[in-house]
Amino acid sequence: MIRRAILIHGGGPTAVLNASLAGLALELRRAGHWSLLGARFGFAGLLAEDFLDLDAPSETLLEQIALAPGSALGSSRHALDEAGYEQAVRILLQHGITTAFLNGGNGTMRAARHLAETAGGRLQVIGIPKTIDNDIPGTDHTPGYGSVARFFAHAVRDAGEDNRSLPSPVMVVETLGRDTGWVTAATALARHSPEDAPHLIYLPEQKVSLEAICNDVERVFRRLGRCVIAVCEGQRDENGHPFGADVQ
Amino acid sequence: MIRRAILIHGGGPTAVLNASLAGLALELRRAGHWSLLGARFGFAGLLAEDFLDLDAPSETLLEQIALAPGSALGSSRHALDEAGYEQAVRILLQHGITTAFLNGGNGTMRAARHLAETAGGRLQVIGIPKTIDNDIPGTDHTPGYGSVARFFAHAVRDAGEDNRSLPSPVMVVETLGRDTGWVTAATALARHSPEDAPHLIYLPEQKVSLEAICNDVERVFRRLGRCVIAVCEGQRDENGHPFGADVQ
Repeated sequence: MIRRAILIHGGGPTAVLNASLAGLALELRRAGHWSLLGARFGFAGLLAEDFLDLDAPSETLLEQIALAPGSALGSSRHALDEAGYEQAVRILLQHGITTAFLNGGNGTMRAARHLAETAGGRLQVIGIPKTIDNDIPGTDHTPGYGSVARFFAHAVRDAGEDNRSLPSPVMVVETLGRDTGWVTAATALARHSPEDAPHLIYLPEQKVSLEAICNDVERVFRRLGRCVIAVCEGQRDENGHPFGADVQ
Repeated sequence: MIRRAILIHGGGPTAVLNASLAGLALELRRAGHWSLLGARFGFAGLLAEDFLDLDAPSETLLEQIALAPGSALGSSRHALDEAGYEQAVRILLQHGITTAFLNGGNGTMRAARHLAETAGGRLQVIGIPKTIDNDIPGTDHTPGYGSVARFFAHAVRDAGEDNRSLPSPVMVVETLGRDTGWVTAATALARHSPEDAPHLIYLPEQKVSLEAICNDVERVFRRLGRCVIAVCEGQRDENGHPFGADVQ
Protein backbone atom coordinates (compact mmCIF):
# COMPACT_ATOMS: atom_id res chain seq x y z
CA MET A 1 0.00 0.00 0.00
CA ILE A 2 1.33 3.40 -1.08
CA ARG A 3 1.46 6.20 1.49
CA ARG A 4 0.84 9.67 0.08
CA ALA A 5 2.84 12.56 1.51
CA ILE A 6 3.20 16.25 0.74
CA LEU A 7 6.05 18.73 1.20
CA ILE A 8 5.20 22.31 2.13
CA HIS A 9 7.86 25.05 2.41
CA GLY A 10 7.68 28.17 4.57
CA GLY A 11 9.92 31.21 4.90
CA GLY A 12 12.69 32.64 2.76
CA PRO A 13 13.91 30.59 -0.19
CA THR A 14 17.45 29.28 0.19
CA ALA A 15 19.57 26.42 -1.08
CA VAL A 16 18.81 24.48 2.10
CA LEU A 17 15.10 24.29 1.19
CA ASN A 18 16.13 22.70 -2.09
CA ALA A 19 18.59 20.36 -0.38
CA SER A 20 15.91 19.22 2.08
CA LEU A 21 13.45 18.71 -0.79
CA ALA A 22 15.94 16.53 -2.64
CA GLY A 23 16.92 14.65 0.52
CA LEU A 24 13.30 13.91 1.38
CA ALA A 25 12.33 12.83 -2.16
CA LEU A 26 15.36 10.56 -2.52
CA GLU A 27 14.94 8.98 0.93
CA LEU A 28 11.24 8.23 0.37
CA ARG A 29 12.12 6.55 -2.94
CA ARG A 30 14.68 4.41 -1.15
CA ALA A 31 12.16 3.54 1.57
CA GLY A 32 9.60 2.47 -1.07
CA HIS A 33 5.79 2.54 -0.71
CA TRP A 34 5.73 6.35 -0.70
CA SER A 35 4.35 8.91 -3.10
CA LEU A 36 5.35 12.58 -2.64
CA LEU A 37 3.61 15.75 -3.76
CA GLY A 38 4.85 19.32 -3.28
CA ALA A 39 2.67 22.38 -2.62
CA ARG A 40 3.62 25.28 -4.90
CA PHE A 41 4.51 28.40 -2.86
CA GLY A 42 3.78 26.89 0.55
CA PHE A 43 0.39 26.96 2.25
CA ALA A 44 -0.99 29.22 -0.49
CA GLY A 45 -0.42 26.40 -2.97
CA LEU A 46 -1.95 23.84 -0.62
CA LEU A 47 -5.18 25.83 -0.29
CA ALA A 48 -5.25 26.38 -4.08
CA GLU A 49 -4.56 22.62 -4.59
CA ASP A 50 -1.61 23.61 -6.74
CA PHE A 51 0.59 20.52 -6.43
CA LEU A 52 3.73 19.23 -8.14
CA ASP A 53 4.42 15.51 -8.50
CA LEU A 54 7.77 15.03 -6.75
CA ASP A 55 7.95 11.37 -7.84
CA ALA A 56 8.48 12.60 -11.40
CA PRO A 57 11.94 14.25 -11.32
CA SER A 58 14.90 11.98 -12.04
CA GLU A 59 17.50 11.35 -9.32
CA THR A 60 19.94 13.45 -11.35
CA LEU A 61 17.53 16.39 -11.45
CA LEU A 62 16.89 16.08 -7.70
CA GLU A 63 20.65 16.11 -7.06
CA GLN A 64 20.95 19.27 -9.18
CA ILE A 65 18.05 20.90 -7.31
CA ALA A 66 19.83 20.10 -4.02
CA LEU A 67 22.66 22.47 -5.02
CA ALA A 68 20.50 25.21 -6.58
CA PRO A 69 19.76 28.59 -4.93
CA GLY A 70 16.21 29.84 -4.39
CA SER A 71 13.39 27.31 -4.10
CA ALA A 72 12.43 24.93 -6.90
CA LEU A 73 9.05 24.27 -5.28
CA GLY A 74 8.37 27.85 -4.19
CA SER A 75 7.89 29.15 -0.67
CA SER A 76 5.78 31.82 1.01
CA ARG A 77 5.27 33.66 4.27
CA HIS A 78 1.48 33.13 4.04
CA ALA A 79 0.13 32.45 7.56
CA LEU A 80 -3.07 30.44 7.99
CA ASP A 81 -5.99 31.48 10.18
CA GLU A 82 -8.19 28.94 12.01
CA ALA A 83 -10.46 28.39 9.00
CA GLY A 84 -7.34 28.03 6.85
CA TYR A 85 -6.01 25.19 9.02
CA GLU A 86 -9.34 23.36 8.83
CA GLN A 87 -9.47 23.82 5.07
CA ALA A 88 -5.87 22.59 4.79
CA VAL A 89 -6.69 19.39 6.70
CA ARG A 90 -9.80 18.81 4.58
CA ILE A 91 -7.85 19.21 1.31
CA LEU A 92 -5.04 16.92 2.48
CA LEU A 93 -7.45 14.15 3.49
CA GLN A 94 -9.46 14.54 0.26
CA HIS A 95 -6.27 13.86 -1.68
CA GLY A 96 -5.53 10.81 0.43
CA ILE A 97 -2.49 12.46 1.96
CA THR A 98 -1.67 11.09 5.41
CA THR A 99 1.77 12.65 5.99
CA ALA A 100 2.67 16.34 5.68
CA PHE A 101 6.31 17.46 5.80
CA LEU A 102 6.62 21.13 6.75
CA ASN A 103 10.02 22.66 5.99
CA GLY A 104 10.83 26.07 7.43
CA GLY A 105 11.79 28.10 10.50
CA ASN A 106 10.12 28.81 13.84
CA GLY A 107 6.85 30.03 12.29
CA THR A 108 6.57 26.96 10.09
CA MET A 109 7.33 24.64 13.03
CA ARG A 110 4.52 26.30 15.01
CA ALA A 111 2.27 25.87 11.95
CA ALA A 112 3.21 22.15 11.86
CA ARG A 113 2.08 21.72 15.43
CA HIS A 114 -1.14 23.64 14.80
CA LEU A 115 -1.86 21.58 11.68
CA ALA A 116 -1.36 18.33 13.62
CA GLU A 117 -3.65 19.54 16.41
CA THR A 118 -6.32 20.57 13.90
CA ALA A 119 -6.11 17.17 12.18
CA GLY A 120 -6.48 15.41 15.54
CA GLY A 121 -4.70 12.16 14.69
CA ARG A 122 -5.88 11.87 11.09
CA LEU A 123 -2.58 13.26 9.80
CA GLN A 124 1.09 12.65 10.50
CA VAL A 125 2.90 16.02 10.49
CA ILE A 126 6.70 16.15 10.40
CA GLY A 127 8.75 19.33 10.71
CA ILE A 128 11.98 19.66 8.72
CA PRO A 129 13.87 22.56 10.31
CA LYS A 130 15.40 25.37 8.29
CA THR A 131 16.91 27.94 10.60
CA ILE A 132 20.16 29.85 10.72
CA ASP A 133 19.77 30.15 14.51
CA ASN A 134 20.50 26.43 15.14
CA ASP A 135 18.01 26.60 18.01
CA ILE A 136 15.91 23.47 17.50
CA PRO A 137 16.18 21.13 20.54
CA GLY A 138 17.14 17.58 19.67
CA THR A 139 19.16 18.51 16.58
CA ASP A 140 22.93 18.75 16.31
CA HIS A 141 22.92 21.44 13.66
CA THR A 142 20.08 22.67 11.47
CA PRO A 143 20.18 23.26 7.71
CA GLY A 144 20.91 26.99 7.34
CA TYR A 145 23.30 27.24 10.27
CA GLY A 146 26.36 26.21 8.26
CA SER A 147 26.10 28.97 5.68
CA VAL A 148 25.32 31.73 8.17
CA ALA A 149 28.19 30.57 10.40
CA ARG A 150 30.48 30.87 7.38
CA PHE A 151 29.04 34.29 6.50
CA PHE A 152 29.61 35.76 9.97
CA ALA A 153 33.07 34.21 10.32
CA HIS A 154 34.04 36.00 7.09
CA ALA A 155 32.24 39.25 7.95
CA VAL A 156 33.99 39.59 11.32
CA ARG A 157 37.34 38.59 9.82
CA ASP A 158 36.86 41.37 7.21
CA ALA A 159 35.71 43.87 9.84
CA GLY A 160 38.92 42.97 11.68
CA GLU A 161 40.96 44.09 8.65
CA ASP A 162 39.14 47.44 8.67
CA ASN A 163 39.75 47.71 12.41
CA ARG A 164 43.48 47.08 11.88
CA SER A 165 43.68 49.62 9.03
CA LEU A 166 41.76 52.60 10.38
CA PRO A 167 42.24 54.80 13.43
CA SER A 168 38.77 53.82 14.73
CA PRO A 169 39.87 51.36 17.37
CA VAL A 170 36.66 49.78 18.67
CA MET A 171 34.09 48.03 16.47
CA VAL A 172 30.95 46.18 17.50
CA VAL A 173 29.47 43.54 15.15
CA GLU A 174 25.92 42.51 16.02
CA THR A 175 25.09 39.01 14.81
CA LEU A 176 21.86 37.18 14.14
CA GLY A 177 20.93 34.15 16.27
CA ARG A 178 17.83 35.36 18.13
CA ASP A 179 18.52 34.42 21.79
CA THR A 180 21.03 31.63 21.15
CA GLY A 181 24.78 32.03 20.77
CA TRP A 182 25.54 29.65 17.89
CA VAL A 183 25.87 32.32 15.20
CA THR A 184 27.86 34.64 17.50
CA ALA A 185 30.20 31.81 18.49
CA ALA A 186 30.84 31.09 14.79
CA THR A 187 32.54 34.49 14.41
CA ALA A 188 35.62 32.89 16.00
CA LEU A 189 35.99 30.33 13.19
CA ALA A 190 38.14 32.40 10.79
CA ARG A 191 40.68 33.51 13.43
CA HIS A 192 44.24 32.40 12.76
CA SER A 193 45.95 34.00 15.77
CA PRO A 194 44.88 35.43 19.14
CA GLU A 195 45.32 38.93 17.69
CA ASP A 196 42.66 38.36 15.02
CA ALA A 197 39.08 39.62 15.31
CA PRO A 198 36.82 39.07 17.13
CA HIS A 199 38.71 39.85 20.32
CA LEU A 200 35.61 39.61 22.50
CA ILE A 201 32.52 37.43 22.05
CA TYR A 202 29.36 37.72 24.15
CA LEU A 203 26.79 34.93 24.08
CA PRO A 204 23.16 35.65 24.96
CA GLU A 205 23.00 32.58 27.21
CA GLN A 206 24.99 34.67 29.71
CA LYS A 207 23.88 38.14 30.79
CA VAL A 208 26.53 40.87 30.85
CA SER A 209 26.68 44.44 32.14
CA LEU A 210 27.87 47.44 30.14
CA GLU A 211 30.52 47.96 32.81
CA ALA A 212 31.91 44.43 32.36
CA ILE A 213 32.08 44.92 28.57
CA CYS A 214 33.87 48.28 28.96
CA ASN A 215 36.43 46.66 31.27
CA ASP A 216 36.99 43.86 28.75
CA VAL A 217 37.42 46.36 25.89
CA GLU A 218 39.87 48.43 27.96
CA ARG A 219 41.99 45.32 28.57
CA VAL A 220 42.08 44.33 24.88
CA PHE A 221 42.70 47.92 23.78
CA ARG A 222 45.71 48.28 26.11
CA ARG A 223 47.21 45.13 24.61
CA LEU A 224 46.43 45.61 20.88
CA GLY A 225 45.39 49.26 20.40
CA ARG A 226 42.12 48.05 18.89
CA CYS A 227 39.17 45.76 19.62
CA VAL A 228 36.43 44.00 17.64
CA ILE A 229 33.44 42.73 19.62
CA ALA A 230 30.91 40.14 18.41
CA VAL A 231 27.57 40.25 20.20
CA CYS A 232 24.24 38.55 19.51
CA GLU A 233 21.08 40.50 18.69
CA GLY A 234 19.42 38.81 21.69
CA GLN A 235 22.07 39.77 24.27
CA ARG A 236 20.65 40.78 27.69
CA ASP A 237 22.16 43.04 30.32
CA GLU A 238 22.65 42.14 33.98
CA ASN A 239 18.98 42.94 34.69
CA GLY A 240 17.75 40.71 31.88
CA HIS A 241 16.74 43.65 29.70
CA PRO A 242 17.61 43.77 25.98
CA PHE A 243 21.19 45.05 25.88
CA GLY A 244 21.51 48.70 24.89
CA ALA A 245 17.75 49.23 24.60
CA ASP A 246 17.99 52.26 26.94
CA VAL A 247 20.50 53.94 24.58
CA GLN A 248 18.17 53.88 21.56
CA MET B 1 69.73 62.28 -8.09
CA ILE B 2 67.11 60.49 -6.03
CA ARG B 3 63.53 61.87 -6.02
CA ARG B 4 61.69 61.43 -2.76
CA ALA B 5 57.99 60.61 -2.90
CA ILE B 6 55.30 59.75 -0.37
CA LEU B 7 52.12 57.70 -0.57
CA ILE B 8 49.07 58.83 1.43
CA HIS B 9 45.85 56.79 1.59
CA GLY B 10 42.35 58.16 2.19
CA GLY B 11 38.99 56.50 2.72
CA GLY B 12 37.94 52.97 3.56
CA PRO B 13 40.63 50.26 3.59
CA THR B 14 40.26 47.69 0.80
CA ALA B 15 42.45 45.31 -1.17
CA VAL B 16 42.68 47.89 -3.96
CA LEU B 17 44.56 50.30 -1.67
CA ASN B 18 47.09 47.54 -1.07
CA ALA B 19 47.25 46.67 -4.77
CA SER B 20 47.87 50.32 -5.67
CA LEU B 21 50.55 50.58 -2.97
CA ALA B 22 52.35 47.54 -4.36
CA GLY B 23 51.95 48.70 -7.95
CA LEU B 24 53.37 52.13 -7.15
CA ALA B 25 56.30 50.82 -5.11
CA LEU B 26 57.24 48.23 -7.75
CA GLU B 27 56.95 50.69 -10.64
CA LEU B 28 59.09 53.34 -8.92
CA ARG B 29 61.77 50.69 -8.29
CA ARG B 30 61.74 49.78 -11.96
CA ALA B 31 61.95 53.45 -12.97
CA GLY B 32 64.98 53.94 -10.69
CA HIS B 33 66.06 57.19 -8.97
CA TRP B 34 63.03 57.14 -6.66
CA SER B 35 62.65 56.72 -2.94
CA LEU B 36 59.17 56.10 -1.50
CA LEU B 37 57.79 56.74 1.96
CA GLY B 38 54.29 55.95 3.19
CA ALA B 39 52.27 58.00 5.68
CA ARG B 40 50.75 55.80 8.42
CA PHE B 41 46.95 56.22 8.56
CA GLY B 42 46.71 58.89 5.86
CA PHE B 43 46.99 62.63 6.51
CA ALA B 44 47.01 62.02 10.26
CA GLY B 45 50.31 60.14 9.86
CA LEU B 46 51.71 62.84 7.58
CA LEU B 47 51.06 65.57 10.17
CA ALA B 48 52.53 63.34 12.90
CA GLU B 49 55.54 62.59 10.62
CA ASP B 50 54.79 58.91 11.13
CA PHE B 51 56.35 57.42 8.00
CA LEU B 52 57.13 53.91 6.75
CA ASP B 53 60.04 53.25 4.39
CA LEU B 54 58.40 51.64 1.34
CA ASP B 55 61.79 50.94 -0.25
CA ALA B 56 62.40 48.33 2.46
CA PRO B 57 59.84 45.58 1.69
CA SER B 58 60.98 42.83 -0.69
CA GLU B 59 59.23 42.42 -4.03
CA THR B 60 57.73 39.20 -2.71
CA LEU B 61 56.27 40.97 0.30
CA LEU B 62 54.86 43.74 -1.92
CA GLU B 63 53.22 41.14 -4.14
CA GLN B 64 51.67 39.54 -1.06
CA ILE B 65 50.45 42.93 0.18
CA ALA B 66 48.83 43.51 -3.24
CA LEU B 67 46.47 40.59 -2.58
CA ALA B 68 45.80 41.30 1.10
CA PRO B 69 42.54 42.78 2.46
CA GLY B 70 42.50 45.91 4.62
CA SER B 71 45.34 48.41 4.32
CA ALA B 72 48.97 47.57 5.12
CA LEU B 73 49.85 51.26 5.37
CA GLY B 74 46.68 52.35 7.16
CA SER B 75 44.09 54.83 5.97
CA SER B 76 41.86 57.46 7.56
CA ARG B 77 38.97 59.79 6.86
CA HIS B 78 40.83 62.67 8.56
CA ALA B 79 40.07 65.90 6.60
CA LEU B 80 42.60 68.77 6.70
CA ASP B 81 41.69 72.37 7.39
CA GLU B 82 43.55 75.30 5.81
CA ALA B 83 46.26 75.30 8.47
CA GLY B 84 46.56 71.53 8.06
CA TYR B 85 47.27 71.84 4.32
CA GLU B 86 49.99 74.45 5.01
CA GLN B 87 51.51 72.28 7.71
CA ALA B 88 51.39 69.28 5.36
CA VAL B 89 53.28 71.16 2.63
CA ARG B 90 55.87 72.38 5.18
CA ILE B 91 56.49 68.86 6.49
CA LEU B 92 56.75 67.36 2.98
CA LEU B 93 59.31 69.98 1.87
CA GLN B 94 61.29 69.64 5.12
CA HIS B 95 61.68 65.94 4.37
CA GLY B 96 62.85 66.69 0.84
CA ILE B 97 59.69 65.14 -0.62
CA THR B 98 58.80 66.60 -4.02
CA THR B 99 56.08 64.15 -5.13
CA ALA B 100 52.97 63.14 -3.16
CA PHE B 101 50.76 60.27 -4.35
CA LEU B 102 47.25 60.50 -2.89
CA ASN B 103 45.25 57.29 -3.17
CA GLY B 104 41.54 57.43 -2.43
CA GLY B 105 38.07 58.43 -3.59
CA ASN B 106 36.43 61.74 -4.45
CA GLY B 107 37.33 63.42 -1.15
CA THR B 108 40.97 62.40 -1.47
CA MET B 109 41.11 63.61 -5.09
CA ARG B 110 39.80 67.02 -3.94
CA ALA B 111 42.41 66.98 -1.19
CA ALA B 112 45.10 66.27 -3.82
CA ARG B 113 44.07 69.34 -5.77
CA HIS B 114 43.99 71.47 -2.62
CA LEU B 115 47.41 70.22 -1.54
CA ALA B 116 48.86 71.07 -4.97
CA GLU B 117 47.33 74.56 -4.87
CA THR B 118 48.66 75.15 -1.35
CA ALA B 119 52.16 74.05 -2.42
CA GLY B 120 52.03 76.42 -5.43
CA GLY B 121 54.44 74.56 -7.71
CA ARG B 122 56.85 73.34 -5.03
CA LEU B 123 55.22 69.89 -4.99
CA GLN B 124 54.08 67.40 -7.62
CA VAL B 125 50.77 65.86 -6.48
CA ILE B 126 49.40 62.76 -8.23
CA GLY B 127 46.00 61.21 -7.52
CA ILE B 128 45.60 57.43 -7.65
CA PRO B 129 41.86 56.80 -7.84
CA LYS B 130 40.09 54.29 -5.62
CA THR B 131 36.39 54.38 -6.28
CA ILE B 132 33.70 51.80 -6.80
CA ASP B 133 31.73 54.37 -8.83
CA ASN B 134 34.14 54.28 -11.81
CA ASP B 135 33.43 57.99 -12.28
CA ILE B 136 36.91 59.45 -12.81
CA PRO B 137 37.17 61.14 -16.23
CA GLY B 138 40.11 59.96 -18.32
CA THR B 139 40.19 56.46 -16.82
CA ASP B 140 38.83 53.29 -18.38
CA HIS B 141 38.00 51.62 -15.09
CA THR B 142 39.09 52.53 -11.58
CA PRO B 143 40.43 50.17 -8.89
CA GLY B 144 37.39 49.27 -6.78
CA TYR B 145 34.92 49.10 -9.64
CA GLY B 146 35.69 45.48 -10.53
CA SER B 147 34.87 44.06 -7.12
CA VAL B 148 31.69 46.10 -6.65
CA ALA B 149 30.53 45.18 -10.17
CA ARG B 150 31.00 41.53 -9.22
CA PHE B 151 29.21 42.06 -5.90
CA PHE B 152 26.11 43.63 -7.46
CA ALA B 153 25.99 41.12 -10.34
CA HIS B 154 25.83 38.37 -7.72
CA ALA B 155 23.42 40.21 -5.40
CA VAL B 156 20.88 40.84 -8.17
CA ARG B 157 21.28 37.29 -9.49
CA ASP B 158 20.52 36.02 -5.95
CA ALA B 159 17.59 38.44 -5.53
CA GLY B 160 16.31 37.02 -8.83
CA GLU B 161 16.22 33.53 -7.26
CA ASP B 162 14.16 34.91 -4.36
CA ASN B 163 11.88 36.66 -6.84
CA ARG B 164 11.36 33.38 -8.71
CA SER B 165 10.68 31.44 -5.48
CA LEU B 166 8.28 33.70 -3.60
CA PRO B 167 4.85 35.12 -4.44
CA SER B 168 6.20 38.69 -4.13
CA PRO B 169 6.48 39.44 -7.81
CA VAL B 170 8.20 42.84 -8.01
CA MET B 171 11.57 43.61 -6.39
CA VAL B 172 13.63 46.80 -6.61
CA VAL B 173 17.38 46.63 -5.98
CA GLU B 174 19.01 50.01 -5.39
CA THR B 175 22.68 50.04 -6.31
CA LEU B 176 25.57 52.29 -5.39
CA GLY B 177 27.26 54.39 -8.09
CA ARG B 178 26.44 57.96 -7.01
CA ASP B 179 25.15 59.63 -10.20
CA THR B 180 26.82 57.31 -12.71
CA GLY B 181 25.41 54.09 -14.09
CA TRP B 182 28.47 51.81 -14.11
CA VAL B 183 27.55 49.87 -10.97
CA THR B 184 23.89 49.58 -12.00
CA ALA B 185 24.85 48.40 -15.48
CA ALA B 186 27.04 45.68 -13.93
CA THR B 187 23.93 44.00 -12.47
CA ALA B 188 23.37 42.54 -15.97
CA LEU B 189 26.67 40.63 -15.91
CA ALA B 190 25.47 37.40 -14.24
CA ARG B 191 22.41 36.94 -16.48
CA HIS B 192 22.40 33.72 -18.48
CA SER B 193 19.04 34.12 -20.24
CA PRO B 194 16.61 36.97 -20.98
CA GLU B 195 14.37 35.62 -18.19
CA ASP B 196 17.06 36.17 -15.54
CA ALA B 197 17.15 39.17 -13.19
CA PRO B 198 17.46 42.07 -13.54
CA HIS B 199 14.62 42.47 -15.99
CA LEU B 200 14.78 46.26 -15.98
CA ILE B 201 17.81 48.53 -15.49
CA TYR B 202 17.63 52.29 -15.06
CA LEU B 203 20.78 54.38 -15.43
CA PRO B 204 21.00 57.80 -13.76
CA GLU B 205 22.40 59.37 -16.94
CA GLN B 206 18.81 59.23 -18.23
CA LYS B 207 15.88 60.67 -16.26
CA VAL B 208 12.77 58.51 -15.98
CA SER B 209 9.21 59.06 -14.71
CA LEU B 210 7.41 56.80 -12.24
CA GLU B 211 4.76 56.28 -14.92
CA ALA B 212 7.31 55.00 -17.44
CA ILE B 213 8.75 52.57 -14.86
CA CYS B 214 5.26 51.28 -13.98
CA ASN B 215 4.53 50.67 -17.67
CA ASP B 216 7.82 48.79 -18.04
CA VAL B 217 7.08 46.67 -14.96
CA GLU B 218 3.58 45.88 -16.23
CA ARG B 219 5.03 44.65 -19.53
CA VAL B 220 7.61 42.39 -17.84
CA PHE B 221 5.07 41.12 -15.31
CA ARG B 222 2.61 40.10 -18.03
CA ARG B 223 5.36 38.08 -19.74
CA LEU B 224 7.07 36.48 -16.71
CA GLY B 225 4.76 36.91 -13.71
CA ARG B 226 7.58 38.65 -11.87
CA CYS B 227 10.07 41.50 -12.23
CA VAL B 228 13.40 42.55 -10.71
CA ILE B 229 14.48 46.17 -11.23
CA ALA B 230 17.99 47.54 -10.79
CA VAL B 231 18.17 51.28 -10.19
CA CYS B 232 21.00 53.56 -9.12
CA GLU B 233 20.95 55.54 -5.87
CA GLY B 234 21.38 58.72 -7.95
CA GLN B 235 18.42 58.13 -10.29
CA ARG B 236 16.42 61.28 -11.12
CA ASP B 237 12.80 61.60 -12.15
CA GLU B 238 11.55 63.45 -15.23
CA ASN B 239 11.81 66.77 -13.37
CA GLY B 240 15.41 66.13 -12.36
CA HIS B 241 14.49 65.53 -8.71
CA PRO B 242 15.93 62.60 -6.74
CA PHE B 243 13.73 59.65 -7.68
CA GLY B 244 11.21 58.69 -5.01
CA ALA B 245 12.23 61.49 -2.64
CA ASP B 246 8.57 62.60 -2.37
CA VAL B 247 7.57 59.13 -1.11
CA GLN B 248 9.93 59.18 1.88
